[in-house]
Amino acid sequence: MIPKEGHLLRIFIGEADRHGGAPLYEWIVKRAKEQGLAGATVLRGIQGYGSKNRIHSAKILDISTDLPIIIEIIDELEKIESFLPIIDEAIPEGLATVEKVEIRFYRFKEKH
Amino acid sequence: MIPKEGHLLRIFIGEADRHGGAPLYEWIVKRAKEQGLAGATVLRGIQGYGSKNRIHSAKILDISTDLPIIIEIIDELEKIESFLPIIDEAIPEGLATVEKVEIRFYRFKEKH
Amino acid sequence: MIPKEGHLLRIFIGEADRHGGAPLYEWIVKRAKEQGLAGATVLRGIQGYGSKNRIHSAKILDISTDLPIIIEIIDELEKIESFLPIIDEAIPEGLATVEKVEIRFYRFKEKH
Repeated sequence: MIPKEGHLLRIFIGEADRHGGAPLYEWIVKRAKEQGLAGATVLRGIQGYGSKNRIHSAKILDISTDLPIIIEIIDELEKIESFLPIIDEAIPEGLATVEKVEIRFYRFKEKH
Repeated sequence: MIPKEGHLLRIFIGEADRHGGAPLYEWIVKRAKEQGLAGATVLRGIQGYGSKNRIHSAKILDISTDLPIIIEIIDELEKIESFLPIIDEAIPEGLATVEKVEIRFYRFKEKH
Repeated sequence: MIPKEGHLLRIFIGEADRHGGAPLYEWIVKRAKEQGLAGATVLRGIQGYGSKNRIHSAKILDISTDLPIIIEIIDELEKIESFLPIIDEAIPEGLATVEKVEIRFYRFKEKH
């Protein structure tokens, strides 16, 4: 429960973006895990614009739409700084932000 | 890849909120695009409370529930400050926050 | 529309985590409401890792997967500080962060 400084990396891409034959967001999550980053969470939006300059939205008959994806990774700044160049070239379009957060608890059990 | 100061605007409303005959979140995204803001992402929560003082949740047989919506917009502070008065009157209930973020990359191709 | 300092608490857990016979995220939202916190929003990710050291993802035939959950609560720092010890013991695995946000508007009507 000791406050500790962490950093939150947020990467905004599209669900249809791909890299190496897989969705780009899956590729980024795998690289994050390989690099030992503490965790990653992928959120999918229901509407948005940015990269394609068109508004995309999730409608029942239009499930192939390129919906917005946010990947969130929290760790020490040093690890995030090392991670950014690894993924940089795989992201031709997108936005990445970093912000400081106070980590209040981080607890995970070892699994067998 | 040059760090640059940006600001993240987050607007918390309900999925059932409407303005001008359309969902309020769609109206806000359209206004953001009109005003030339760099991008917008709409997230839908699966549960929440706030405006209605009741807990709403997404259950299979209850898809009309008023689920929480978060609209995220990242740009320069100046553009966000100009945008807030434009949408202010359309939001009778909700919460808006602004926080500083470091933009690590922002790259979008022109589409034809 | 007066800027005001608030704090954003974000709790990262798994959808399958339970407490007292209910999903942990529902339990946390109920406690937040009981404690009079201004609002809570639960987001479900489509993929992630952290607690279980395995990558989880939402596939059509695999809806029981333990997807990542983010609970967001915005209020004064004092209220968030009082809330954290209340939920602490119920969260054997997870991550919680606090960050400062500027509240631009917060308006809710009384409902009857």
